[in-house]
Amino acid sequence: MVPRVIFGRGSFNQLSEIISPNRLNTKAPFIYLVDDVFKSNTWLTSRISLSYDDKILYISTKEEPKTSQVDQLVEDIILTCKERPSGIIGIGGGSILDLAKAVSILLTNEGSAENYQGWDLVKNPAIYHVGIPTISGTGAEVSRTAILTGPKLKLGINSDYTPFDQVLLDPELTKDVEKNQWFYTGMDCYIHCIESLNGTFLNEFSKTYGEKAFDLCKEIFLADNLSVAESQDKLMMASWHGGMSIAYSQVGVAHALSYGLSYYLGVKHGIGNCLVFDHLEEYYPEGVALFKTMKAKHDIELPQGICANLTDAEFDIMIKVALSLEPLWENALGKKWKTIITPEKVKSLYQKI
Amino acid sequence: MVPRVIFGRGSFNQLSEIISPNRLNTKAPFIYLVDDVFKSNTWLTSRISLSYDDKILYISTKEEPKTSQVDQLVEDIILTCKERPSGIIGIGGGSILDLAKAVSILLTNEGSAENYQGWDLVKNPAIYHVGIPTISGTGAEVSRTAILTGPKLKLGINSDYTPFDQVLLDPELTKDVEKNQWFYTGMDCYIHCIESLNGTFLNEFSKTYGEKAFDLCKEIFLADNLSVAESQDKLMMASWHGGMSIAYSQVGVAHALSYGLSYYLGVKHGIGNCLVFDHLEEYYPEGVALFKTMKAKHDIELPQGICANLTDAEFDIMIKVALSLEPLWENALGKKWKTIITPEKVKSLYQKI
Repeated sequence: MVPRVIFGRGSFNQLSEIISPNRLNTKAPFIYLVDDVFKSNTWLTSRISLSYDDKILYISTKEEPKTSQVDQLVEDIILTCKERPSGIIGIGGGSILDLAKAVSILLTNEGSAENYQGWDLVKNPAIYHVGIPTISGTGAEVSRTAILTGPKLKLGINSDYTPFDQVLLDPELTKDVEKNQWFYTGMDCYIHCIESLNGTFLNEFSKTYGEKAFDLCKEIFLADNLSVAESQDKLMMASWHGGMSIAYSQVGVAHALSYGLSYYLGVKHGIGNCLVFDHLEEYYPEGVALFKTMKAKHDIELPQGICANLTDAEFDIMIKVALSLEPLWENALGKKWKTIITPEKVKSLYQKI
Repeated sequence: MVPRVIFGRGSFNQLSEIISPNRLNTKAPFIYLVDDVFKSNTWLTSRISLSYDDKILYISTKEEPKTSQVDQLVEDIILTCKERPSGIIGIGGGSILDLAKAVSILLTNEGSAENYQGWDLVKNPAIYHVGIPTISGTGAEVSRTAILTGPKLKLGINSDYTPFDQVLLDPELTKDVEKNQWFYTGMDCYIHCIESLNGTFLNEFSKTYGEKAFDLCKEIFLADNLSVAESQDKLMMASWHGGMSIAYSQVGVAHALSYGLSYYLGVKHGIGNCLVFDHLEEYYPEGVALFKTMKAKHDIELPQGICANLTDAEFDIMIKVALSLEPLWENALGKKWKTIITPEKVKSLYQKI
């Protein structure tokens, strides 16, 4: 679990005070990885205080984070810094947070990021890393994974060294998130709850977190009595609790299929989850019904026909990625999941999207 | 926050596997501080695997933990161990957990435990310490404090080094808790929720944890549909979430008064909270009404007339301790709490008990 967390509207102003005791020396900078949507946003960037060799790297999140992107960032940091950095601070959505986690690991572990995709392959502790979400729902701020698309798979770097050393939760930072993005990322959290609460891996620890996140999602996406600030605060906490819930259980069918979609077609994770989940009545009947109600309430139109023109060979690539995520299927459908989910079944689900 | 947590019925069997990577060398033992109610309980003790110089110290919890008790334990450990221990493992209720936290701090910080009562007075990191609750409700497993009665005050050692490095939550360990004790300690959790949720320090982070713990308490103490195992699981999680809620806000009137009662009369914390809370309708009307319903449902008879024969001088000692806890009063009643709560008012509340 993340050992240190600050919560509060405006708490971003305390960033410099929080991280400064972790500066190793004047030659070991703090490197800020910041979503490039904030590039000209002085409301945010003017509050990042740069000292000595500290620097901001603006990063596009048009595409899901890649192992090659991590390797490139690590190489750039090693080449341009006099010493190993004092810390990596990720400021953005799930993509930036996962990149920050991965870069901090690869600065102390040799080779390429793809070598560490899997479970507990990381040998050395990462450098100090801080996560500051600017969009709520992914749970990346609290998770033990950094999900990356590699040459072979979309798979996380899951390890005890992956979680952030410090998280700063300032709901005000989410104020400019565009409506569709808000919905898709919020639904990532909602789907975490449905998959965790309906999974065979469920235990009372995950359940209490999942139930709270689920209640918050219903309040945020279905009730009409919240102020904008309340809604931001609650969604940031829903993301946190939803992330905690899956940390101690697992996701399920929607995430398995969404990873395949994302791996081959580059569909971003939030919208990918929504595209898939819309067709999963068979597995999550109540969860999907409520999802459709939320979608209608917020006038969200999902793209159609994403997989319409794919060849069999293309479907096969996506099916292979989806079916490789065995723990997700086992959580969703039990130990005998292979008797329920076949490549044909996965294909028939993709064909609906 | 606690960085590592294991949850599960029977997870106590994994203890040795979990802690062994933290053994420094064969001369640096693990010291187990265990509630002496488990002294002849082989169901539990046979599962503690002792290697090299490891040892179990059985500790009476008839009285609340004291700074002098911490000092004595630390001295004994230093005198009898060849090297500084590899870790301290506390197995018991709130008293044992707080002792384990304090001892692990005093093994690396000079002087007496009383020097560290307060906020952020601890200079050096504590040695590795593990908390294993065997009774649920106090939140001591997750808190940033170790509450001790010192020569001058009942006050916690609040610091970044206080929280456990590892917590093991095995609800099965609570199976033999006696009914009154179960109720009193469970109500400690319930009162944490009421005080946090009705406090002026409340924020959305604390609120979501407090609400979940409150919902769990209502389910455990008022519903009739839970199995024994479900009830144990849920109370362990309620304690956890309730502890998280006050970690990011504060307790209130009941805890302030209960500390005074405990400091002078030695009343244990759980029952002390109940004795006080029973008379706090003025501050927590709904919370107290629900408490009385729970008390009646479980046929709990609280002792009466605890303060009946006290002299004015004795009341003054208790009042002084209670009023010294300024953050608790400010949380409960706002910045102008001194205009609401006077020594006479506190006395009138104690006189009811």
